[in-house]
Amino acid sequence: MDELLEEILAECKPFTSQGALASYIPELAKADPNSLGIYLVSSDGRINRAGDYHKPFTIQSIVKPILLLQALMDNGVDYVRSRVGVEATGKPFDAINYTEQALLSDHINPMVNMGAIAICTMISGKSYEEKFDRLLELTRLLAENNEVCLDEDVYLSEKRSGSKNRALAYLLKTYGIIQDDVEEVLDCYFRACSIRVDCADLARIGFTLASHGKSLSTGERIFPAAYASYVNAILMTCGMYDGSGDFAVKVGVPAKSGVGGGIMAVVPTRMGIGIFSPALDEKGNSVAGIRALEILSKKLYLSIF
Amino acid sequence: MDELLEEILAECKPFTSQGALASYIPELAKADPNSLGIYLVSSDGRINRAGDYHKPFTIQSIVKPILLLQALMDNGVDYVRSRVGVEATGKPFDAINYTEQALLSDHINPMVNMGAIAICTMISGKSYEEKFDRLLELTRLLAENNEVCLDEDVYLSEKRSGSKNRALAYLLKTYGIIQDDVEEVLDCYFRACSIRVDCADLARIGFTLASHGKSLSTGERIFPAAYASYVNAILMTCGMYDGSGDFAVKVGVPAKSGVGGGIMAVVPTRMGIGIFSPALDEKGNSVAGIRALEILSKKLYLSIF
Amino acid sequence: MDELLEEILAECKPFTSQGALASYIPELAKADPNSLGIYLVSSDGRINRAGDYHKPFTIQSIVKPILLLQALMDNGVDYVRSRVGVEATGKPFDAINYTEQALLSDHINPMVNMGAIAICTMISGKSYEEKFDRLLELTRLLAENNEVCLDEDVYLSEKRSGSKNRALAYLLKTYGIIQDDVEEVLDCYFRACSIRVDCADLARIGFTLASHGKSLSTGERIFPAAYASYVNAILMTCGMYDGSGDFAVKVGVPAKSGVGGGIMAVVPTRMGIGIFSPALDEKGNSVAGIRALEILSKKLYLSIF
Amino acid sequence: MDELLEEILAECKPFTSQGALASYIPELAKADPNSLGIYLVSSDGRINRAGDYHKPFTIQSIVKPILLLQALMDNGVDYVRSRVGVEATGKPFDAINYTEQALLSDHINPMVNMGAIAICTMISGKSYEEKFDRLLELTRLLAENNEVCLDEDVYLSEKRSGSKNRALAYLLKTYGIIQDDVEEVLDCYFRACSIRVDCADLARIGFTLASHGKSLSTGERIFPAAYASYVNAILMTCGMYDGSGDFAVKVGVPAKSGVGGGIMAVVPTRMGIGIFSPALDEKGNSVAGIRALEILSKKLYLSIF
Repeated sequence: MDELLEEILAECKPFTSQGALASYIPELAKADPNSLGIYLVSSDGRINRAGDYHKPFTIQSIVKPILLLQALMDNGVDYVRSRVGVEATGKPFDAINYTEQALLSDHINPMVNMGAIAICTMISGKSYEEKFDRLLELTRLLAENNEVCLDEDVYLSEKRSGSKNRALAYLLKTYGIIQDDVEEVLDCYFRACSIRVDCADLARIGFTLASHGKSLSTGERIFPAAYASYVNAILMTCGMYDGSGDFAVKVGVPAKSGVGGGIMAVVPTRMGIGIFSPALDEKGNSVAGIRALEILSKKLYLSIF
Repeated sequence: MDELLEEILAECKPFTSQGALASYIPELAKADPNSLGIYLVSSDGRINRAGDYHKPFTIQSIVKPILLLQALMDNGVDYVRSRVGVEATGKPFDAINYTEQALLSDHINPMVNMGAIAICTMISGKSYEEKFDRLLELTRLLAENNEVCLDEDVYLSEKRSGSKNRALAYLLKTYGIIQDDVEEVLDCYFRACSIRVDCADLARIGFTLASHGKSLSTGERIFPAAYASYVNAILMTCGMYDGSGDFAVKVGVPAKSGVGGGIMAVVPTRMGIGIFSPALDEKGNSVAGIRALEILSKKLYLSIF
Repeated sequence: MDELLEEILAECKPFTSQGALASYIPELAKADPNSLGIYLVSSDGRINRAGDYHKPFTIQSIVKPILLLQALMDNGVDYVRSRVGVEATGKPFDAINYTEQALLSDHINPMVNMGAIAICTMISGKSYEEKFDRLLELTRLLAENNEVCLDEDVYLSEKRSGSKNRALAYLLKTYGIIQDDVEEVLDCYFRACSIRVDCADLARIGFTLASHGKSLSTGERIFPAAYASYVNAILMTCGMYDGSGDFAVKVGVPAKSGVGGGIMAVVPTRMGIGIFSPALDEKGNSVAGIRALEILSKKLYLSIF
Repeated sequence: MDELLEEILAECKPFTSQGALASYIPELAKADPNSLGIYLVSSDGRINRAGDYHKPFTIQSIVKPILLLQALMDNGVDYVRSRVGVEATGKPFDAINYTEQALLSDHINPMVNMGAIAICTMISGKSYEEKFDRLLELTRLLAENNEVCLDEDVYLSEKRSGSKNRALAYLLKTYGIIQDDVEEVLDCYFRACSIRVDCADLARIGFTLASHGKSLSTGERIFPAAYASYVNAILMTCGMYDGSGDFAVKVGVPAKSGVGGGIMAVVPTRMGIGIFSPALDEKGNSVAGIRALEILSKKLYLSIF
């Protein structure tokens, strides 16, 4: 199996040259575009890995399912669903999903920026610092890694250059979808996106979603199975931005990508997968990462369809 | 199990009053809004059914996955994918997915009207009559029912009142996505939508997708497994119009609805399901039908997430 | 004055190389891209002209104000206004001014294709042939030229390749803005666009709008002054497609351009101007034609602002 | 003439009940919805007035032409035109004129919020305080009234509840159309909108545009005639929001409305008009104000078409 992974990486490595590093903040442009790593955690306890699986990167949008999970754990499905919709927007991740009409909660989605910003306000906590601390704690618990922490440089860089997210957040506020101070909400969101992880962390987080809420090491329940299904369903329909349809056809499992180059894939009941390769396609997904998952899915019959 | 179905129907029947019959053509408005039927075909050979499972209705949009399947069988995945995209549009089924920019094949999707009209042109056949005949033949084969046939009244009614579809088709022609005579293409599309089926037909068709292409009665392969995965993935992300996200969260299986009141659901490896209840919600999906699938999914753990 | 015109043409001639001939129908691509002609008719009876003022070309969108005028003469302002809006769409001339919402009459405008197609249905006449004949008759009357006639080749070419206009017309029909047979309506529209004129014709037609409805040669009233104001106001806000704002700032008079290369300009109370130069900018307006009007407006203080 | 004004006001007063006060900030909702005043300044020196012409109100969007004028005086036409477009957007005043594409300077317009916010950055001044002070100074000069000043309550209310404008401004910043600190730019914009004026002030400001830049009292040139034409042309095409087309047809002169209930109308070479009536139609224009201008235009042949 490790051999298979090595083969796949060798086959996919050339694809890194077809993508480009995220450049909207200087910090992300510092990554090595040729990196490619993969880490698998299976329900039978096996671990397989290859390449740059140990290289750290920021979680970026892959924090969105964790934000959603925290909001579900703090509020239940009904409340969260009433505040943030679940339909694919048919638009890029940072789109302003809005025309002349009023913006409604049903127009946003937890896997695109507007929805994820709204989700931040639903995390329990007296302050946005506390909300973020709870999110980080959950991330560590899911990743079974207490050393997961904030990348301060990326966070500050995000905060400085976050005009588009500020526009999105003020629009949410205009239509009453968020009420709190926009800068405080965004500070939490920028921190959330700047959590530093590696492929192993993503694989273990993905595994908890694959196992419907059970801990990898102890088998104990961390969160209700219904929340895993809720998150997985949304990952399936919207996890890969406006490339989700293609990913469903080619790979066929719930997954989430981030502009840091990570992809977390969830093979229900079977596997959590973490991938890292920071050269992105024009939709913001890791080029070599998607290619690797495509081959892996074919070889191991991972598609749920 | 039949008891369970009876219970579910009893629980869901009141929901029929929350919807409305499709009214864009007079023929559809003649249905009995209180109808509710269900039919299940399982991989172990069991059949379960309840309510108005024998009532005929027109297939409408549920023909879209069959059209797609026929196009895949005639052209292969790569060609079909190059001509019609797979992303959710984030818009209603008959939306003009178009703003100021050129319309590209990637903007359309086989589960919404524009994409399905384009798919019609990809079916092999010397004439559009022959194309339709081949589609009908495939439908009969999948449904294992040679009596499946065209509802002439609905077809003529569709043809007379199809201005929106004509607008969509001429737009496809403007941008070179279709080249043939628009009226001929649409004639095939209107016929396709007017095929008359019942719950049993839909369940058997769904079963072939669930079994990855194998015949229910003989076990023989009707189409390659890869085509089933392709279709199922698109059903999952776009099968229930702009209610697909909600359906993924609540039911969690690939499915397709039609404005005739039918829903075909596919439980991969396990089951094909046909539902009929013509009172629709504002997105064009059967109100009681979705509710019944939601309960059934919870009771039988059908969600693939 | 003729000298001034010669100077202006000499100065503007090089701009013809910055545009491109309309290419959506083969007939239009046959024009000589370097042509440039101008013709002025003033209220004091003077006529001035230079360059290719005698070259014939098809009227194309410049027929839109004549269509509007005929509809006003046949129905009055209130009826016409209730059926077709007057706001700028902020979009290109052949845009589908439509998103997810219903298309309303207020969304269309007589100076863009959707609105002009709707206007065709408001012309009096038992058949669409009669409607067109009446329009042609009005055009001849305004142009004081009985030899104005249809360019059969352009008409047939338009009719063959009019997919976009068919899409627009079927959309109008979908929303009940037009009721008649789409092909019949479009036949009238395609004929209207294919009327052959020259700069002198456009100047005389423009003069009737400048003189608020009075004949150039006899001074007799052809149509009520209120209709001239209605048409001129719409020309000012929408006559030059999505370049109307720029034209208002730079030239400052009501005008209408066509993809055949013509521009008809109206200087209220003072002048009618016809221009021909078929090399178009990306918005569909004559490059050298606009430049010539800009210089002329500055030299003769034509701007109404 | 004063009698005519009294008659018009009597006829239009009932229309105040058809509109509603702007309610997005509490301060505006405190106005008397039945107010109606008018003030005319003519080039022959006559002044006519009636009704509540002396009641103060905040200038709101009517400051947009003054902002534009100041930017033109500080930078010239070419620079201003290169930074902010002039086409009608076809959308409401606070629309996000943006879809999936990049926002370009050509997409915005000085008469809608995005454009006006961008214009603020073009006013000369070391700080945004100085920029505002210069704008206020110009407003006083044009109004020939040194007592024109800021309404502090409205300004603070605008600043507190300006989420939509913040969203617009951050979007401008995202696309590099503005570079400065968003809160500083908006502070200037909110102050600009909160300048308190009355009908007489608006009439005198309008007169300077009608006279192409000459002072009402001294006849001296305040700004170049070309700037007046630039501003008037944009007022004509976009001054009344997405009701500009209707206004062009019905009234036929350049004008600007504000949600405070004011309308400033410019009759080139002849007249400046100030109107106040705070009950607005759904597009944000004064209901009775427009009606009064419509009648006045007919009686005095004001239309420039």
